[in-house]
Amino acid sequence: MVYETRRYEVGLTIPAEVGMSLDDVHTPALIIDLDAFENNVRQMGAFARKNGIRHRAHAKTHKSVDIARIQMELGGAVGICCQKVSEAEVMINGGINDVLVSNQIVDPRKIERLARLANKARLQVCVDDGDNVAELSKAAVKHQTELACLVEIDCGSGRCGVQSGFQVVELAERINSAPGLVFKGLQAYQGAAQHIRNFDERGTAVKAAIRQVSDTIQLLNASGLLCDIVSGAGTGSYYFEAGSGVYNELQCGSYVFMDADYQRVQDAEGDCIHEFENSLFLLTAVMSKTRRDKAICDAGLKVQSVDSGLPYIFNRDDIEYIKCSDEHGEIADPHNHLKLNDRLLLVPGHCDPTCNIHDWYVGIRHNRVECLWPVSARGMAY
Amino acid sequence: MVYETRRYEVGLTIPAEVGMSLDDVHTPALIIDLDAFENNVRQMGAFARKNGIRHRAHAKTHKSVDIARIQMELGGAVGICCQKVSEAEVMINGGINDVLVSNQIVDPRKIERLARLANKARLQVCVDDGDNVAELSKAAVKHQTELACLVEIDCGSGRCGVQSGFQVVELAERINSAPGLVFKGLQAYQGAAQHIRNFDERGTAVKAAIRQVSDTIQLLNASGLLCDIVSGAGTGSYYFEAGSGVYNELQCGSYVFMDADYQRVQDAEGDCIHEFENSLFLLTAVMSKTRRDKAICDAGLKVQSVDSGLPYIFNRDDIEYIKCSDEHGEIADPHNHLKLNDRLLLVPGHCDPTCNIHDWYVGIRHNRVECLWPVSARGMAY
Repeated sequence: MVYETRRYEVGLTIPAEVGMSLDDVHTPALIIDLDAFENNVRQMGAFARKNGIRHRAHAKTHKSVDIARIQMELGGAVGICCQKVSEAEVMINGGINDVLVSNQIVDPRKIERLARLANKARLQVCVDDGDNVAELSKAAVKHQTELACLVEIDCGSGRCGVQSGFQVVELAERINSAPGLVFKGLQAYQGAAQHIRNFDERGTAVKAAIRQVSDTIQLLNASGLLCDIVSGAGTGSYYFEAGSGVYNELQCGSYVFMDADYQRVQDAEGDCIHEFENSLFLLTAVMSKTRRDKAICDAGLKVQSVDSGLPYIFNRDDIEYIKCSDEHGEIADPHNHLKLNDRLLLVPGHCDPTCNIHDWYVGIRHNRVECLWPVSARGMAY
Repeated sequence: MVYETRRYEVGLTIPAEVGMSLDDVHTPALIIDLDAFENNVRQMGAFARKNGIRHRAHAKTHKSVDIARIQMELGGAVGICCQKVSEAEVMINGGINDVLVSNQIVDPRKIERLARLANKARLQVCVDDGDNVAELSKAAVKHQTELACLVEIDCGSGRCGVQSGFQVVELAERINSAPGLVFKGLQAYQGAAQHIRNFDERGTAVKAAIRQVSDTIQLLNASGLLCDIVSGAGTGSYYFEAGSGVYNELQCGSYVFMDADYQRVQDAEGDCIHEFENSLFLLTAVMSKTRRDKAICDAGLKVQSVDSGLPYIFNRDDIEYIKCSDEHGEIADPHNHLKLNDRLLLVPGHCDPTCNIHDWYVGIRHNRVECLWPVSARGMAY
């Protein structure tokens, strides 16, 4: 056992402190516009209430206990989703009492930890393999607990999940006859559809998933198996699932922050998603300006993921972020508007992996630092 | 001031413990093959000695105090480079006594911290702006210290650095006449050339940089200014700079780990760089296998940066890592060789930003965990 005492010092280990002006926050830093963030949380809560559907917020987006708590308290989320056991451990240790691990847990060391967690909070896990059922059952019995299982179906992502309804029935029966396990329903997330730009094409993909889920439920019912929970949907598709009469739980995560890539997803009118605002920003500053038409800022690959494209610069159409290297960002500045130490807000290309690089969220309201939230489950991928 | 006591528990906060078999390390985890790593360190040390040139290892690759120390003790490096003040703080607090911040520091808060550091260790910083000289001088005087400055020249990267020799002379003179500052020489890193695949094309780009540096030194000498230090070069080009008679310090960083992208850089015979071995791996495990021709592993964007391409699977030509999403990797498995919990070693596409996501290096020798090194300056981008 190793113990470590950590001391926080602004600039060395934390980018800001409460009460500071936004102008004094050390760059680069991950900023939350608290008004926009709370609007997004309320908006999703209102949508779920209005449509009579549960919202289980996906915490893989933010990995923050503080944000999860706000999603539940302010947004009425019934609980959260996690992707990894270590994420669930952090969330449950932080007081979040209802967690769906929306992923397969097959490693014996992880199954052991999962079963221990099931005695601490309401916990569910996804399954797509028969042998895994046996292993989960053994661990549940050993730890004198009950593990609630959702069978994951592959409804178009081509990733995890079983493909046929008959396999689902077989797995569900196997779960129900395994000591310590109980079949709760279906995990059916069409991840591949979330970022399809065109509304109709996205709708077609999601509606195919909905039909598949509906057919699967009928097959299950015919075998006397009931689905308490039919869970899925993301920020790009949630209104389709909510109106389906088939799903009863939404798993949206990115809605809380939004990002440049989700801004490219269109609604029925061809506009970008407008019900949620950008609330997550990367604060950066110009640190070299030796050319009239270019500036170099301090936000490179070490503070953002560019897997889904480059960030864009918020509220500025005179300049453009055009290249990202390890430690630097290149900004086209055709009118020579920028000078050293100018500060810019970037909208990250992809929120989830960008948040996973940072240790802190700096919460801003009216240009003041109102709170510092640790990215509690940062790096928790085990 | 906030204090936090941290307890480490395998699987929850650390991926392994010393003495463990590689088979028991929790996945995904960042692994160092210690034999290969030490070979790389020795190899670079021997090259520098043989060529009568200093090596100042770039710590932005690994961000680890432990590795920096080994580069100095085993590899004979004279010190390290850092890109950020917060990185330098961690390194100097960890006992590294000779640090070049190979970047511009222009933010007043950062200049303040930099000047404080200069009283704790041998410290140098890069400059490409006249106003910045005045600010650095003020801070040095305030903290009763001397800041050694290198003028950065843009020798082909099109990023930071001044472009003409006359500007270099002007800046050097300004530095020498500023209280608390001393002009030490040139920072001249041709970053854009490092990853040019073809040996001759890469050589052409680097030789142009060398000529520019040489011309600049002549101009400086004609004004009575001497360059103690001419620093630059990376893993893709170091032999050009070392043989130039112009550079006297190499800044290679990636050589210590290597990555998939550097493996695509060719030597004179068209082979990949062979003097350094892959020593950095991402240990991953199969966590879903519902299709004969595909497996899903637990290493996605949350544990690696794919900015320079996907990872490849070490020592396996029967399977291929073909797609990376937030939490999952898709592996083409045309012969249905893989099963649940099979473990694979990935060679990351790009080492620097991949290391910056992880909290720990797991050092392996003969399939046993020999050491756990924290990624000490992880996330230190301020």
